[in-house]
Amino acid sequence: MLKDIENLPRGSRFPRSEVLAGLRLNADGLIPAIAQQHDTGEVLMMAWMNREALNETLATGSVCYYSRSRGRLWRKGESSGQVQHLKGLHIDCDGDTLLLRVDQTGPACHTGRSNCFFFRVDGDEVVITANPLIDPKTLYGGHGASGAKAGAPKDPQ
Amino acid sequence: MLKDIENLPRGSRFPRSEVLAGLRLNADGLIPAIAQQHDTGEVLMMAWMNREALNETLATGSVCYYSRSRGRLWRKGESSGQVQHLKGLHIDCDGDTLLLRVDQTGPACHTGRSNCFFFRVDGDEVVITANPLIDPKTLYGGHGASGAKAGAPKDPQ
Repeated sequence: MLKDIENLPRGSRFPRSEVLAGLRLNADGLIPAIAQQHDTGEVLMMAWMNREALNETLATGSVCYYSRSRGRLWRKGESSGQVQHLKGLHIDCDGDTLLLRVDQTGPACHTGRSNCFFFRVDGDEVVITANPLIDPKTLYGGHGASGAKAGAPKDPQ
Repeated sequence: MLKDIENLPRGSRFPRSEVLAGLRLNADGLIPAIAQQHDTGEVLMMAWMNREALNETLATGSVCYYSRSRGRLWRKGESSGQVQHLKGLHIDCDGDTLLLRVDQTGPACHTGRSNCFFFRVDGDEVVITANPLIDPKTLYGGHGASGAKAGAPKDPQ
């Protein structure tokens, strides 16, 4: 459906239900969702949504993903308190990627860092570019960094 | 491997080859790559890379993706001329998403728009938020918008 309307001018409007029905989810019923801090432009993380997560996010205004590792909805901040308030939801031209403009409470990353993209290629090396804003021990009620390494879910919280 | 080093401080360095070997590609050997304009923070698009595309991007400094629809490497701008110069390549904490900081020549989107995320949810509607910077006819040598709709690859160019 998006292909049929992509050349229409700015301001053109369509029923939300029809556009969302045309999203192209993958074989697992998931679509990638990029979270960007709405006022600074910082790319915080990327995670996945299924239709239920997307509908909940639009209904509540709090971002809900689908955790592939846990096989269930993942209400961002449910264990860390670091929620994402939705400021805007964008769909790309192919209908297979979402861009969430959010207001992130505290760090987005389960390591306590502001965003998840703290490994940067630098020549023949990779360098860590940021320190945690908050000790992950504080974020996860005493389980802490070593606990997070050993047993915590792979998704950022 | 990234899990073992994620709690180390800023400035910690590791051999690039070891970190890249620890990337978690999907079952098709692909990893999502978000392209962000390096100086404005604008999120331009998301596409996929395989190891060959990633290696070529790092070697040449021009972004190369893997086109799922065409089943081959996709040197961004190869048909449109709208290339992406790599300014920085970041890896997320899980090693399953890349963030490319780029300098985009002209529009990133095959529709001629600056970026691909021009559909925005607005209440019960979806609105188109931008007009093309360049007529797609110009980008694709006269095949134009209707040609792009009928026969062109689904990936943005």
